[in-house]
Amino acid sequence: MRAAIFRNGEIVVGSVPEPSPAAGQVLVRTLACGICGSDLHARKHAHRMVEMTRYLPGRQPMDLSRDVVFGHEFCCEILDFGPETQRRLKPGTRVCSLPALVTPTGPRGIGYSNDNVGGYAERMLLSEPLLLEVPNGLPPEHAALTEPLAVGVHAVAKANISGGEVPLVIGCGPVGLAVIAALRIRGLHPIIAADYSPARRALAAKMGADIVVDPAHVQPYATWAEHAAMSPEEKAARPAFQAHLAALKPALIFECVGVPGLLQQVFEGAPRDARIVVVGVCMETDRNEPMLGILKELSVQYVLGYTPEEFAGSLRLLAEGEVDGASLVTGSVGLEGVAQAFDDLANPERHTKIIVEPWR
Amino acid sequence: MRAAIFRNGEIVVGSVPEPSPAAGQVLVRTLACGICGSDLHARKHAHRMVEMTRYLPGRQPMDLSRDVVFGHEFCCEILDFGPETQRRLKPGTRVCSLPALVTPTGPRGIGYSNDNVGGYAERMLLSEPLLLEVPNGLPPEHAALTEPLAVGVHAVAKANISGGEVPLVIGCGPVGLAVIAALRIRGLHPIIAADYSPARRALAAKMGADIVVDPAHVQPYATWAEHAAMSPEEKAARPAFQAHLAALKPALIFECVGVPGLLQQVFEGAPRDARIVVVGVCMETDRNEPMLGILKELSVQYVLGYTPEEFAGSLRLLAEGEVDGASLVTGSVGLEGVAQAFDDLANPERHTKIIVEPWR
Repeated sequence: MRAAIFRNGEIVVGSVPEPSPAAGQVLVRTLACGICGSDLHARKHAHRMVEMTRYLPGRQPMDLSRDVVFGHEFCCEILDFGPETQRRLKPGTRVCSLPALVTPTGPRGIGYSNDNVGGYAERMLLSEPLLLEVPNGLPPEHAALTEPLAVGVHAVAKANISGGEVPLVIGCGPVGLAVIAALRIRGLHPIIAADYSPARRALAAKMGADIVVDPAHVQPYATWAEHAAMSPEEKAARPAFQAHLAALKPALIFECVGVPGLLQQVFEGAPRDARIVVVGVCMETDRNEPMLGILKELSVQYVLGYTPEEFAGSLRLLAEGEVDGASLVTGSVGLEGVAQAFDDLANPERHTKIIVEPWR
Repeated sequence: MRAAIFRNGEIVVGSVPEPSPAAGQVLVRTLACGICGSDLHARKHAHRMVEMTRYLPGRQPMDLSRDVVFGHEFCCEILDFGPETQRRLKPGTRVCSLPALVTPTGPRGIGYSNDNVGGYAERMLLSEPLLLEVPNGLPPEHAALTEPLAVGVHAVAKANISGGEVPLVIGCGPVGLAVIAALRIRGLHPIIAADYSPARRALAAKMGADIVVDPAHVQPYATWAEHAAMSPEEKAARPAFQAHLAALKPALIFECVGVPGLLQQVFEGAPRDARIVVVGVCMETDRNEPMLGILKELSVQYVLGYTPEEFAGSLRLLAEGEVDGASLVTGSVGLEGVAQAFDDLANPERHTKIIVEPWR
């Protein structure tokens, strides 16, 4: 079958073996698959990704001398069933799934694997127990947003919100936008967001940010501080010895950029006691000043992925119109267009999410 | 009056102006003052410390062209009272205090300040509202341990312990030992601790560590994993999808070393979902691999200092014999011995805590 293949550091269109469902597996046709920032990172930093995998027991590193088919944000249609399947859903049913296969030796990732092709291919294999039927006639290109939305939902869940925090989202790419959507659903306001791109700022407002700033003109942390000022009643409720501290509500900062130096910028801008959730995926070595973290008693929560419940919940949010998927999709391509789409995604004015439609 | 002064990057004995208590202040005689690892750091990295202060609104950076008298772990005797004081405690009373002065414009630090001399001087000024009477005839050299113990008590408080965690303490200097003491009091077992020094390992066991390892021979994270293995009942209570994860209790790692590269080592050794509390004070720029934090969903809580309640509680723990201060004190010096003591503290076999007695 045809696929957009990661081969020798490039994305090329070619042929990969037709997949055949094993016990518990389902053969599906890929209807739509989002291109993720991690795929762009992986193309550029594949060796780093392999290197990091050795720290994770049970994870299979990619063999970069062999073909890999990326794509972990997919919506598919059931074609056929392997042995030992329940077959509760009928062929033709549209489904989403966590990008993982359940195997006797534990889950195996889909998309950054030599063995399990991702959504940049005409067909793929999924594990029947992980299938989620797409409800409400949600179009496949929007159902494919389940995965990136789940990343935001998970990041917000890992932030351990107690209710009084004022959130600041740094970077409004797909990850930042998903965080904004999840914060809006969580009801935490005002949501402050920052991005250099006018198009991304407009989307941030559309997804639920209350205040959107351009860091080229306005210091995001100063804007945050304006909106995090405590009322006199809130100040009075603080411990006496802390009354001298700037009377600000707790800061909850989502780092959604993922480039070296960004976390250090957050350390510099963050107020005392800020909780920082690192959602951006920085694959390079980073430098920072631990003294800043210490002097401000910062906390940093690195996050990755989502739970099965968060994933299923994200699909529901899209299907019920709680999150407007349509405004995030800015383009779609066939397999021949994937390599160009990787380049086009570098321009935030033009693109947010490009959907691959391997059947085109 | 005489003092051991930080001047031009060195510790020298000399004379500083006699302090005179302002409104709300008390003049005290310094009976005992511990030498803190931060003082050693400050001597070496004073410029960095000043540079970092600019990120903290309200903090006064040291002017390194002028004299500074270090010393923030002190026990004193009341000599005289300034105006507008309550005088509830009598002259001759032994007291401890947070190393800070309450001023109309907020607290000002004692010890890393050009204006407020620390405990390496014959006399100093304290704020009356912060005075804590030393109870139970606790000797001054043990009362002076209140401050470093409070650092451990605070670190353990900031760890948000829920009860099921297995703690691992990396580094058994005064900070690590205080963390071990606080963990023992918190009742979290088994406490695993690691240090290259046999003397420090012996002290770690004395302070309450259940398992003590030498990282030169045994991998601390492997030892941790042995002791953090879940029982079959505990495994059965986990969510099904997570059953594939190594069935270990949550890791709570205290980084009590504070040198560049150490946090990266912890990132490499830590299991998935570990919570890392950074108590060691690294004053230099550090490098790490954020991907490791991301892939393992680590969280990092930087901590500094303590609350007034934690400080007062630490004095009580020492006075009530809950923490054995005597075994931590390995030497005492007069003002002339401070410079040599700074060098001697580099040898963990010989010293843990050296007490300065400026009256000698």
